Amino acid sequence: MTQVQMKTLYGPVAEDMILVEDLLESTKNVDLAPLKRMLDHALEARGKRMRPGLVLLAGSLGDYNLNKLVPLGAAIELLHTASLVHDDVVDGATSRRGRPTANAVFDNALTVLLGDYMFANAAEMVTRTGSLAVTRLFALALMKMTSGELDQDAAAFDVGKDVQQYLWRIGGKTAALFANATEGGATLGNCDERTIEAMRTYGYSLGMAFQIVDDVLDFNGDEESMGKPVGSDLLEGTITLPGLLFLERYPQDNPIKRFILAKRDRDARLREALDAVANSEVLDDSLDIARDYVKRANEAISFLPESDTKRCMIDLGEYVLSRRS
Amino acid sequence: MTQVQMKTLYGPVAEDMILVEDLLESTKNVDLAPLKRMLDHALEARGKRMRPGLVLLAGSLGDYNLNKLVPLGAAIELLHTASLVHDDVVDGATSRRGRPTANAVFDNALTVLLGDYMFANAAEMVTRTGSLAVTRLFALALMKMTSGELDQDAAAFDVGKDVQQYLWRIGGKTAALFANATEGGATLGNCDERTIEAMRTYGYSLGMAFQIVDDVLDFNGDEESMGKPVGSDLLEGTITLPGLLFLERYPQDNPIKRFILAKRDRDARLREALDAVANSEVLDDSLDIARDYVKRANEAISFLPESDTKRCMIDLGEYVLSRRS
Repeated sequence: MTQVQMKTLYGPVAEDMILVEDLLESTKNVDLAPLKRMLDHALEARGKRMRPGLVLLAGSLGDYNLNKLVPLGAAIELLHTASLVHDDVVDGATSRRGRPTANAVFDNALTVLLGDYMFANAAEMVTRTGSLAVTRLFALALMKMTSGELDQDAAAFDVGKDVQQYLWRIGGKTAALFANATEGGATLGNCDERTIEAMRTYGYSLGMAFQIVDDVLDFNGDEESMGKPVGSDLLEGTITLPGLLFLERYPQDNPIKRFILAKRDRDARLREALDAVANSEVLDDSLDIARDYVKRANEAISFLPESDTKRCMIDLGEYVLSRRS
Repeated sequence: MTQVQMKTLYGPVAEDMILVEDLLESTKNVDLAPLKRMLDHALEARGKRMRPGLVLLAGSLGDYNLNKLVPLGAAIELLHTASLVHDDVVDGATSRRGRPTANAVFDNALTVLLGDYMFANAAEMVTRTGSLAVTRLFALALMKMTSGELDQDAAAFDVGKDVQQYLWRIGGKTAALFANATEGGATLGNCDERTIEAMRTYGYSLGMAFQIVDDVLDFNGDEESMGKPVGSDLLEGTITLPGLLFLERYPQDNPIKRFILAKRDRDARLREALDAVANSEVLDDSLDIARDYVKRANEAISFLPESDTKRCMIDLGEYVLSRRS
């Protein structure tokens, strides 16, 4: 991502994001050659760095101490990357962001250990904040993340799940780490209780919206800029919000059910299911729910005095709703 | 393990080990049904609990505060168990301690996430010690463990490795967590620097001896009490100390090389290699090296005044050398 995009997304803290990059880069400096090769691969694809951006933004509401905030930002990004490494093993995914996954280049066994190493390094990194409270929040966030992933995986190819459980699951899988970024940043900034609480709600709500939009993009996104084919979730048996709404509304003869239960012609059944969902109103309805979460995020910070940081946080909500990849 | 065995191994702290069991047991209390099933399975097989035993023993050299020592003991045992869960996925192992592995009962994907959850829970548990220093040591130990495992896995079926690299690898894979137990226990007990340093050396050396004996037992152990067939390591391409010594001494025509390179008749070649090693002097030589490590462990604690704890630590060294499973 370019410096201009960084500036647009992270305004007042954009220039400090390079410190997070440097710290992430330093984690590749290991003696063990096979580990170095794998870390180089895993850390090569750069995402939008939303989580570290949120850490710095939240921290800028209080004492803006980069010696503490940068390690937390890097730790959370590392944890996020490690979880993607393991998710790709779990899902047997072969590409992400248009590049081959670690498990496609190395093998599953080594990739499991690579993820473990990155988790451990992330845990070590978070202790550099000097805060046991923040370290504890970080461990709890990882417990929620893996619970959410586990629930998703255990519920694959099950058409009997409901929206409530979906929201619980993405709350763990995605929103917990967003909340950890904002709550942790505000805690390290020695913000008052009300601000810390607001940051937790803001991060959690933004994370919920982010994941819902992600799940909508799996139906109507741009394959090239996403670096993966549409319909990937459904193909793996993961029924996300649009699919759940569609099942709720058309409980009888339903193309999603037909795909999930299909023993053959699975490609054709998948195509039918994707088309049916894309041509219905459920994608818009899902985006409405995402919009509600962004509204909650904005309400949580409405009491804060006007500032570049507050403006940037509100803009991030708009960005999350409008992104196409 | 019976109460009498506990008493023999952990003397002055044996009765407090039940508190570690209770805390480990409490980690199974989760709402998510598939996670609960997997945790029940993973935590059912109880080992010798050496690592928590070492935490309490080391802590008893200073302020014996069970509110801190018990969480560290449980965290380290949980981390150890999580690493076994992932190792079994990595190795494709189907039984351990005579029971089916988690990956054999559930599937690899869910088992990877189970291990992740347990790592996260262990990290959360260690923060309950209230010590950021101990939490940091814990994260560093996990980095060493995964590096050691990774090196072992990357070096599988490579006959060009040497004893030095083997010692580095088991230092990470096993001894780092033993050292973490003793150093962490002494740190939580507010021991003086000399005692903390002695505990680090004692734990590390004991761990090295423990792993070397483990690797010897893979050649001559009792299959029934180990719960797995002899030769498991070599079958996976892992060449441990006895094999490395054997390759060093007989560099030309060598049955280990023949097995590693064998394209067919692998069972017969494995049998030949195991017999050749078992009938040579390298198993005794390996045990001599283990004995040297126990000697180093005892030297490290020789300056401590006589006590039940010191006596128990010395006995643990003897136990490690004499165990048959």
